[in-house]
Amino acid sequence: MRSVIVWPVVLAVAIAGMLAGLAGQSQTPRQVDLVVTGGTVVTVDATHRVLADGAVAISGADIVAVDTAEAIRRQFRGADTIDATGTVVMPGLVNTHTHAPMSLFRGLADDLALMDWLNNYIFPAEAKMVSPEFVRAGTRLAALEMIQSGTTTYADMYYFEEEIAKETRAAGLRGVLGQTIIQFPVADAKTPADGLKRAEAFINEFKGDALITPAVAPHALYTLDGPTLKAARDLSRRYNVPTLIHLAETRDEVKTAQERLFPSGVAYLDSLGFFGPGVLAAHGIYVSEPEMAVLKSKGVGVSHNPESNMKLASGTAPVTAYLRAGVALGLGTDGAASNNDLDMFEAMRMASLLQKLQTSDPRVVNAQTAIDMATIGGARAMGMDKQIGSLEPGKRADLIVVGMSAARQTPVYDPVSHLVYVTRGDDVQTTIVNGKPLMRDRKMLTLDEAAIIREARGWAEKVRAAVTPQKKAN
Amino acid sequence: MRSVIVWPVVLAVAIAGMLAGLAGQSQTPRQVDLVVTGGTVVTVDATHRVLADGAVAISGADIVAVDTAEAIRRQFRGADTIDATGTVVMPGLVNTHTHAPMSLFRGLADDLALMDWLNNYIFPAEAKMVSPEFVRAGTRLAALEMIQSGTTTYADMYYFEEEIAKETRAAGLRGVLGQTIIQFPVADAKTPADGLKRAEAFINEFKGDALITPAVAPHALYTLDGPTLKAARDLSRRYNVPTLIHLAETRDEVKTAQERLFPSGVAYLDSLGFFGPGVLAAHGIYVSEPEMAVLKSKGVGVSHNPESNMKLASGTAPVTAYLRAGVALGLGTDGAASNNDLDMFEAMRMASLLQKLQTSDPRVVNAQTAIDMATIGGARAMGMDKQIGSLEPGKRADLIVVGMSAARQTPVYDPVSHLVYVTRGDDVQTTIVNGKPLMRDRKMLTLDEAAIIREARGWAEKVRAAVTPQKKAN
Repeated sequence: MRSVIVWPVVLAVAIAGMLAGLAGQSQTPRQVDLVVTGGTVVTVDATHRVLADGAVAISGADIVAVDTAEAIRRQFRGADTIDATGTVVMPGLVNTHTHAPMSLFRGLADDLALMDWLNNYIFPAEAKMVSPEFVRAGTRLAALEMIQSGTTTYADMYYFEEEIAKETRAAGLRGVLGQTIIQFPVADAKTPADGLKRAEAFINEFKGDALITPAVAPHALYTLDGPTLKAARDLSRRYNVPTLIHLAETRDEVKTAQERLFPSGVAYLDSLGFFGPGVLAAHGIYVSEPEMAVLKSKGVGVSHNPESNMKLASGTAPVTAYLRAGVALGLGTDGAASNNDLDMFEAMRMASLLQKLQTSDPRVVNAQTAIDMATIGGARAMGMDKQIGSLEPGKRADLIVVGMSAARQTPVYDPVSHLVYVTRGDDVQTTIVNGKPLMRDRKMLTLDEAAIIREARGWAEKVRAAVTPQKKAN
Repeated sequence: MRSVIVWPVVLAVAIAGMLAGLAGQSQTPRQVDLVVTGGTVVTVDATHRVLADGAVAISGADIVAVDTAEAIRRQFRGADTIDATGTVVMPGLVNTHTHAPMSLFRGLADDLALMDWLNNYIFPAEAKMVSPEFVRAGTRLAALEMIQSGTTTYADMYYFEEEIAKETRAAGLRGVLGQTIIQFPVADAKTPADGLKRAEAFINEFKGDALITPAVAPHALYTLDGPTLKAARDLSRRYNVPTLIHLAETRDEVKTAQERLFPSGVAYLDSLGFFGPGVLAAHGIYVSEPEMAVLKSKGVGVSHNPESNMKLASGTAPVTAYLRAGVALGLGTDGAASNNDLDMFEAMRMASLLQKLQTSDPRVVNAQTAIDMATIGGARAMGMDKQIGSLEPGKRADLIVVGMSAARQTPVYDPVSHLVYVTRGDDVQTTIVNGKPLMRDRKMLTLDEAAIIREARGWAEKVRAAVTPQKKAN
């Protein structure tokens, strides 16, 4: 009796299955270049979507889909697949302020005041050492460290920026690279006019590059006069490229602005007509709330560098006020000479902890906010949020795979929280930029790690011989 | 003609060489158990001696010599040798404040205020979860992380402390372990009287152990009344064991002291006759300079926990004032639930950066001072500076070998500076406690890493089921 009832049901199920199968077949999985699948995907999109068992499909330089692993499997077949099971997949980190070649000065002069550090160590060391070869070796070292710690885009301010651009491109990283303009004679320019000429040539050489965005980097108001600041800004406006500048980093800098009869650096630069979209100001510590409104209305981005600011005792940027004001805010490490590393995970953790302390409120700059700053916030601060900063279809495929299995990461209650409070650069397993893996399971694919380290040690020997160490305070 | 002059010289040199050889032979190298040789030895002795190519000779649990590699080679032959070429050899790190089993709550509740965190997450989670089995699993996880990041001695305050002691001893770590006394009913004691009985039994079980120093841990003045605080302190005095307590951690705690009609926690405890040698006070944020003089004169040690204090927005301990006052000051991580790791290298870096910022002077808490706090300072704060905290003959052989070759550590100008500003727990290669290697070239020798991690994940499942997560603020 039972079989009489059961058989039609079985038949109906079988027919439904066949129909579903046909539907599935009609939807032939599309071939893509790369699928990263199986991890917790932290998208950093507008709704902060987190996919517990997610996947990202990549074609050429672009993300074509971000969805559950199951949905991606149905829709796409990857020529190559990265199994991200047990890891977090997230947007590559955006370091909005560094000086890549200064990695060769890492730890050269610690425990010193900013002006002492700059005037008695860094500037003299740079005067003696900086050359195209030095800059290339330093950039390779920095690129190695950045790829190993999950940075996929970085903003740079230094000398011989065209050499930095060549090495950045060779490493496969994305860079917003600013040729420095400074009032006094430096290794790559005897005068600011030389510097501007060099910047213009640099822009012409790299404009339109898939990875490199050339930029102009007037150093700071305390190392430049008004006319040069204006000329640098005019150059970047003429070519529609970003302007990178140090701003409101120290109390001394505020004094310099006041000597020029303005209450602050922001007021002074504003009086020069300096601000506008494309300006990225590093540090922004001594900025009032009304000045933040100015920065916001002019479309200026700000780079927060908590570790450098602490190490040099510069002060604490009013991060929560910036966020309230809606200023585009990114995170940076600053150069390795004042940090002393390029680890953006540490920058996230420090930004969060420092604001909690500063505001006496442990709820501010929570983990998601810190991640936002290190990804989409940085992209926004550099005017690149249409291209990078989150995992969304149509954006460039800049993403990282982050291990979550170390003893010091165990257990995991909330992967988002863990990214900020327990994760380090060393946990990054795989780094992909523009669709291309630069590191895979900790194996470097574009750089020769041993050769770069050997070469850096050789340069350090020369630096040591050139710079007479002075007695440190105890 | 020339040969006539030269030959006697050659003969004289040869004879001198033979005599020297005989002298060398007469001084037969002494057999020791272990020689660690070839690294930069950072002794943290009274003169802060650093040996560029140094070595440490170890016999049994003790250091027998610290000298140049050449001198050690002449004097000692190790049954076992660790080649530390290219690394730094330094005293094992002393973590003066943690709650080891709370590693199982790592990341359970972030971005919350201390009292919210304690009352709505941690205390309820503990009420539901804490058992001897939980405590043992958590301690194994913490021990694994500590050994992997170079901690060789730690101070602990938790429940079922005898279970923690057993696991600590099995892992081979040194511990000053305090049985918690708290006013309300907890997993291991229905009343404070029960807790005191338990503490006494614990002391009797472990007093005299080579690795474990049992201690009494009255939780804090805000969780204990005066009579119980006194009783706990009396117990530790009676057995001459340390007393561990949270002190001056938050403004709320200051208010509690004021409700008891004392201006501060220090004044309140002092009125109870609480202070004396052997008391280790964790946090010490809200302490005035005159109160520091009291702590100093009573021989009280202080544990500074910069990351936990920042993360919970508790405040900044006046570290430079403590150092000026001559208070014995160590560093701690606090429990992994509020840090969120047990990495003492990060604690050093954070202590240094935070004080630079706090005092607006980037020269304070320089690298050597931070290392001192994490080693000999911690030892002093726990009254153990005769036994541990530096590499000196006669002390226990607690030392670590720290790698310095990663890209992010390249180049090295000053190894001491690099230990604080670029090194992480993960760089520790070898950890030795009481003469016994617990980890060698990152290979765990006393603990089964995979089993511990698996087990911790199992406990996390239970915690997740027991604690209803509440919506976090954004």
